[in-house]
Amino acid sequence: MQDIRDLIRHIDDFPSKGVGFKDITPLMQDPQALQKSINALLQPFADTDIDAVAGLEARGFIFGALVAQQLGVSFIPLRKAGKLPSTTQTVNYQLEYGNASMEIHADALTSGQRVLLVDDVLATGGTARAGCELIEKLNAQVAGCTFLMEIAALNGRQQLKSYPTHSLVQF
Amino acid sequence: MQDIRDLIRHIDDFPSKGVGFKDITPLMQDPQALQKSINALLQPFADTDIDAVAGLEARGFIFGALVAQQLGVSFIPLRKAGKLPSTTQTVNYQLEYGNASMEIHADALTSGQRVLLVDDVLATGGTARAGCELIEKLNAQVAGCTFLMEIAALNGRQQLKSYPTHSLVQF
Repeated sequence: MQDIRDLIRHIDDFPSKGVGFKDITPLMQDPQALQKSINALLQPFADTDIDAVAGLEARGFIFGALVAQQLGVSFIPLRKAGKLPSTTQTVNYQLEYGNASMEIHADALTSGQRVLLVDDVLATGGTARAGCELIEKLNAQVAGCTFLMEIAALNGRQQLKSYPTHSLVQF
Repeated sequence: MQDIRDLIRHIDDFPSKGVGFKDITPLMQDPQALQKSINALLQPFADTDIDAVAGLEARGFIFGALVAQQLGVSFIPLRKAGKLPSTTQTVNYQLEYGNASMEIHADALTSGQRVLLVDDVLATGGTARAGCELIEKLNAQVAGCTFLMEIAALNGRQQLKSYPTHSLVQF
């Protein structure tokens, strides 16, 4: 994944002083590398039954939609509270500072469907864990979680230990 | 486009009392219909040179990324202020109530590149117009604008009259 790593740009002091940010916009500007990353996100799940792909707002929409179309399955957006217009299920979760809520449409999945969760980055795992809980609230199953990047020192895998979890590039 | 129209759900009183919302999540749950919508978004631009696709946060990320991969060109996210980590250009624009800002990375496009703007809905046209201005701030050209839906009564095309503009379903 060296070529994918080379298309992730480090930005100092974003979103705040002293924090480093991994910017994936250069990867999105390279259609061949982007397609390679979509294939790689799916690679460990080649023998896994997947009925739907859930993507976390907002960058997870980009990768999630591409993964879903590659598989030919449903794409399900998981959104910040108040954005989904129909009846929802909600999970509250902790951020580094304060709390947040994420929602799924109550009719997005049917009981027993197997769902792959997609996001750009696995950091503390709080958001991804909330996404998995939303999927399970609809009596669907988390088939796995797949991320472009993983910030290994934040140990987000600990939050996802019940699920097969994959990342392409580790920092 | 009747089958696509049938997968857009009307929700009363969202985001506020008396407002109707067109919900495209059923379309995203149907991979064949979603692929058909991507083809249809591109159909009038089959003979147009396009170097990049710009998608407006957040639902425009879903359709924009799929359109870009279909064409095999760059995907450029246009984001709400404060979300893009590197050097940006900014455009301020009016919403129904108040103002907003949208940003593009200053190195997202090179001079003369031809860009297709993609979003889910053309309403008043303010957001799409701001997106076109961002593209032009980088000395790139707007090759066209394409939308899944158009709320015709809001006359958003008036804001985009300099550009070839297309929508799949009109309400």
